[in-house]
Amino acid sequence: MLARQARTVVDCCRLLAGFSQETGRTTRTFLSPPMRDVHTHLGSWMQRSGMSVQVDSVGNLRGVYPASSPGRPRLFIGSHLDTVCDAGAFDGVLGVVLAIALVDLLQHRQLPFSIEVVGFSEEEGVRFGVPFIGSRALAGTLDDQLLGRVDPSGKSIVDAIRDYGLDPSRIPDARFGDQSLGYLEFHVEQGPILDNLAVPLGIVTAIVGQSRLAVTFTGSANHAGTTPMHARRDAVAGAAEWVGAVEALARRTSGLVATVGRLRAWPGITNVIAGVCQASLDVRHVSDGARAMAVDTVRRSAEQIANRRELTVQFEAHLDQPCVPMSAALVAALERAVAGQGLPIHRLESGAGHDAMILAGHMPVAMLFLRSPGGISHHPDERVIEGDVAAALGTGVTFLDDLRGHARE
Amino acid sequence: MLARQARTVVDCCRLLAGFSQETGRTTRTFLSPPMRDVHTHLGSWMQRSGMSVQVDSVGNLRGVYPASSPGRPRLFIGSHLDTVCDAGAFDGVLGVVLAIALVDLLQHRQLPFSIEVVGFSEEEGVRFGVPFIGSRALAGTLDDQLLGRVDPSGKSIVDAIRDYGLDPSRIPDARFGDQSLGYLEFHVEQGPILDNLAVPLGIVTAIVGQSRLAVTFTGSANHAGTTPMHARRDAVAGAAEWVGAVEALARRTSGLVATVGRLRAWPGITNVIAGVCQASLDVRHVSDGARAMAVDTVRRSAEQIANRRELTVQFEAHLDQPCVPMSAALVAALERAVAGQGLPIHRLESGAGHDAMILAGHMPVAMLFLRSPGGISHHPDERVIEGDVAAALGTGVTFLDDLRGHARE
Repeated sequence: MLARQARTVVDCCRLLAGFSQETGRTTRTFLSPPMRDVHTHLGSWMQRSGMSVQVDSVGNLRGVYPASSPGRPRLFIGSHLDTVCDAGAFDGVLGVVLAIALVDLLQHRQLPFSIEVVGFSEEEGVRFGVPFIGSRALAGTLDDQLLGRVDPSGKSIVDAIRDYGLDPSRIPDARFGDQSLGYLEFHVEQGPILDNLAVPLGIVTAIVGQSRLAVTFTGSANHAGTTPMHARRDAVAGAAEWVGAVEALARRTSGLVATVGRLRAWPGITNVIAGVCQASLDVRHVSDGARAMAVDTVRRSAEQIANRRELTVQFEAHLDQPCVPMSAALVAALERAVAGQGLPIHRLESGAGHDAMILAGHMPVAMLFLRSPGGISHHPDERVIEGDVAAALGTGVTFLDDLRGHARE
Repeated sequence: MLARQARTVVDCCRLLAGFSQETGRTTRTFLSPPMRDVHTHLGSWMQRSGMSVQVDSVGNLRGVYPASSPGRPRLFIGSHLDTVCDAGAFDGVLGVVLAIALVDLLQHRQLPFSIEVVGFSEEEGVRFGVPFIGSRALAGTLDDQLLGRVDPSGKSIVDAIRDYGLDPSRIPDARFGDQSLGYLEFHVEQGPILDNLAVPLGIVTAIVGQSRLAVTFTGSANHAGTTPMHARRDAVAGAAEWVGAVEALARRTSGLVATVGRLRAWPGITNVIAGVCQASLDVRHVSDGARAMAVDTVRRSAEQIANRRELTVQFEAHLDQPCVPMSAALVAALERAVAGQGLPIHRLESGAGHDAMILAGHMPVAMLFLRSPGGISHHPDERVIEGDVAAALGTGVTFLDDLRGHARE
């Protein structure tokens, strides 16, 4: 039965990938028209499985499976329904479909707690440049400044909500009620760790902290033909040396990842020595202290390189997000459930941010990763293995059983 | 008298800098409206100095000072009247104004050769992305492919010529006649060499050869948070390492300059490891062999770096311009003339391209550089020292005297 249900899950994800803003590739941003088809399709499955369904005021799809008796606490299970541009079929969507499939497996049998499956409307940050709109609404932390942000067409989040036929004045109603047992999220790993170890499932212990900076080296633009090498104040050469220092630090520091993903030179002309070069920096580590130390080290490297080359360097901090640990109790429950499938227990950190991070301040949270073949994600080649989906469903069933035991106590 | 004329030259250049397409800064591209004011101003000075003036079919301002008798050969003296964006007052313009001032100093005394002062309409390549339109017309090498190029507004060179009120069918008439004695160009150095040596004038021995390439590193775009350092194929990290190798080679190779002025990453997002990084490369050396060897070395560096990092690298050659030596006879004449001013003789190469490079295949050419204070050029702070301009005028007078002796033989 798990194998059949796993196939249904994979088929459903593939089908939803066709609901896209772009022909021939999967792109589905916050409250875009194809989101309606996703809601219709998943909503009807939710109803068939015994859930009462609504779309809340920020476009989260929410299905409530009632408890065996009123006044019982609630377990949230979910992930996001929006995608990056030219996405794969599983990032986010898999977690929602898997949650519905799990409730479906209960076959209308009720538990001593209710379950709410949430398909978050926005996690990727594509349309408004800011992620987690859906889970922030659930957490009650969507503020006016955020709601006023505009997309490239000049439309604000509030406008987008109205255009979709929803009522932004009801955003406070989207907040979760009290008596929450916690939040569980199934998600593809989006990295190569489980695949390299040949382990189907991974239990997330924490979502690592992130620092994001813009680093600008300024020298002096000059003629590429008439300026001798020793007389140059070349911003590109300085930035390039620093990229090497960033990479070297990350390679020698256990658990650290550091990335320069954006790099641009001004005036950016073949025969002109660049006067300005700007680089982005993304630094992540499970230890906030180690991350702060790494940021400090690469800042000092930049300053030393700039001094030696008679450049100046400026830093602009864009993000300083602390590490978010998962709930120890839920992690332990997931471990028992994974072991119950006869599978090895592998704990790992999430290098990517997830909705669970937003909810962690409000309720106990946990995440279960499914292996990503080849570590490929945010790409049409993103895959999951059907057997891993079956294992995740089995883990979910055991997890609910385990929680039932605890909820009864 | 030289000192007063030098002041006139500097004042005239400053005045012409006000004829601009942009308020508050000097920008004057090929056949732009302010070019008319430049022609009017310089043309009337040319006429007062005894020249017959015309604007040819590509917009070159041409003033002919007749020889003492008909059928005598002609000496061309000139430079360009167009500017880069936000230019200084002297690059190009100085050479034209200095040439008129030099003829003016003859005070209608005729020589055994005619002199044609040319203010080239285009040298910088700003409007059409291709330089030397003016001197190519004089050399007779403007072809249809070039004339069909369009500016950012979609206008071709031929359209621009017609719009200005000129007749593109007469371009062949712009070609210089036979019996040319040669071409002399006064120009600011645009580099720090003479200024560092405290030498006013420099005699150019050659315009160095140039190679221009685009170099593209391709790896694999991936998640900055979930991809461990050892599993990355980071195009930015590869390109950055290569920029260091280019700089190191140029620093240890005498006379070599190598520049990466343009650098860009794709997708170019803070939290995504770049899958592609493209860099421009500009390599110059007076020896074509040394330049070819340098290009070969940095290509091999790129391939080694790419191999080690599991990237691929592609090269696209955009320019392979050989070194252009100046005429030995004219260089010797310039040396005698500079020595005649009681000034030190300093030979140097031009790292920048000039109109002289285009004419070199058609007649003997020579260039005299005036020191650039601070090496600043292509910038509003570009300056010349009035005493250096007087020295250049004195050198010009002696050069003409010298040539008179030779022309009589």
